[in-house]
Amino acid sequence: MAITVVGSVAFDSIETPSGRRERCLGGAATYFSLAASYFTEVRVIAVVGEDFGKRQEAVFQARGIDTRGVEHTAGKSFFWEGSYLENLNEAKTHNTELNVFAAFEPKIPEIYRDSEFLFLANIDPVLQRRVREAMPDVRLVAGDTMNYWIKDHRPALLEVLKGLDVLLINDTETKMLAGNNNLVQAARAVLAMGPRTLVVKHGEYGATAFFSNHSFASKGEGAEPHPFRAPALPLDEVVDPTGAGDSFAGGFFGYLASAPELTPAAFRRAMFYGSVMGSFAVERFGTERLQQLSRKEIDDRFSLFRELTHLD
Amino acid sequence: MAITVVGSVAFDSIETPSGRRERCLGGAATYFSLAASYFTEVRVIAVVGEDFGKRQEAVFQARGIDTRGVEHTAGKSFFWEGSYLENLNEAKTHNTELNVFAAFEPKIPEIYRDSEFLFLANIDPVLQRRVREAMPDVRLVAGDTMNYWIKDHRPALLEVLKGLDVLLINDTETKMLAGNNNLVQAARAVLAMGPRTLVVKHGEYGATAFFSNHSFASKGEGAEPHPFRAPALPLDEVVDPTGAGDSFAGGFFGYLASAPELTPAAFRRAMFYGSVMGSFAVERFGTERLQQLSRKEIDDRFSLFRELTHLD
Repeated sequence: MAITVVGSVAFDSIETPSGRRERCLGGAATYFSLAASYFTEVRVIAVVGEDFGKRQEAVFQARGIDTRGVEHTAGKSFFWEGSYLENLNEAKTHNTELNVFAAFEPKIPEIYRDSEFLFLANIDPVLQRRVREAMPDVRLVAGDTMNYWIKDHRPALLEVLKGLDVLLINDTETKMLAGNNNLVQAARAVLAMGPRTLVVKHGEYGATAFFSNHSFASKGEGAEPHPFRAPALPLDEVVDPTGAGDSFAGGFFGYLASAPELTPAAFRRAMFYGSVMGSFAVERFGTERLQQLSRKEIDDRFSLFRELTHLD
Repeated sequence: MAITVVGSVAFDSIETPSGRRERCLGGAATYFSLAASYFTEVRVIAVVGEDFGKRQEAVFQARGIDTRGVEHTAGKSFFWEGSYLENLNEAKTHNTELNVFAAFEPKIPEIYRDSEFLFLANIDPVLQRRVREAMPDVRLVAGDTMNYWIKDHRPALLEVLKGLDVLLINDTETKMLAGNNNLVQAARAVLAMGPRTLVVKHGEYGATAFFSNHSFASKGEGAEPHPFRAPALPLDEVVDPTGAGDSFAGGFFGYLASAPELTPAAFRRAMFYGSVMGSFAVERFGTERLQQLSRKEIDDRFSLFRELTHLD
């Protein structure tokens, strides 16, 4: 089943202990699409400037990603500059230029409208909501957000959360959103805001899913369903952590969209595929690694993740 | 099979967001013994002062722990005072009084000498080595250490590491010991120092085992065996994190000592039982929770951990 994703397509200048890259292709929608493209059909809604040319377009084309919803306008694309010199788990932002993104008005191509899965990447919740409302018939909606929207755009964000099947955020964002420093209590509070499932990403420690009683993914029948934890791969070298969370989301949602049925078992496998795609993303700068994977490499790593966590 | 453990038996005054307790029974050997006592016979080597009386002794007796190796001397027992007010993952030490522990000379009762398992809890590596050498015939030796010994007693510690089957330490200690900030590279460096298996404890994120090619626990046959990751239970409330790592070690080593054979499968279950005992320990102050568990509660939580991590 096809996924429509709305989010940023951008250029990133990145410095990590492994080196530096100038203006590589980035943005949440880019990482998400590439990761999801190994599982299902992906359609992107974004805006880019005149600096987005054939070379960038070719990255999407090579993976069969539909970019008819990527609007080209006058000006420059969204640009981010950051480093991870002291801490690979947290980017230090040196510069953010919204450029054409500042006036982004998502337009949904008619041909995208039969998408059954919708992913609202990390953008202004007002825009997330507008896209959500323009696609009322989707089967499953997942979304991401970040500290900036949680702190300063809370009312708009709370409206978005009401309509989400799955929210994917990290530990800090979960605790900030709930105003509670205990992860389990914070997760419970976030679920009460609307999402039926909350996936909390822990970076190098994997991710934990928390379920409400209304989640298709919950196996539990008690008062409160048990969570589910997917590991991350202990890696020799993290070359560039940029996009790991978006790649997790792409692997996760891409697998779900490809699953014959939305069951707790499919959800668990989706969590593992999320971790798998996140682990590939950080092995090279930018989207390099995500551009040239094979399904066999992905499934071999999935087996490794099983081996890494299963008793037998 | 019986385990002999050498380490501290102490009094702790602890403050956490959940409250404060004065002079509760603590010490690494105490937490370890209680946790291991649900799986196998445990024998303790330690030293206590005149403040260690019938009430404390009864805690060990109730769990059938052999305390004939606990020496009673004039003076006061080891005392630690700490708090976790800002960060539940890291204790802030307010006071440490070694007291009778300062002159501790471990004496191994004759009746302990047929123990097949030996655990060297976090004490001066010179003493760890002495006990290790006095029990040359044990089948499996595991040990713990801490930043203080890593920083200021490195040569003595390196001697201990050479003789260990399993070293259990946390992320920070692993990176400090190896002088490397990447966990996988650090683990490789630590394994090269001697331990055949390294268990790195991640607090609320569980623990990861790394194996050398000489580890009984390794399933891999390639150049470098794959690691194994056990989860921690996402908890509603962490009342008191004191002793979580020692309880992990007790559950882990206790289960191993009770296993019919030392196989990779037994090792994996041992990692899960370690996490299980750690998760119980933090639910109440001090050793309260570890004093009154049933094997059924333990096995139910083991099943929950499987549910939390397994695809099917």
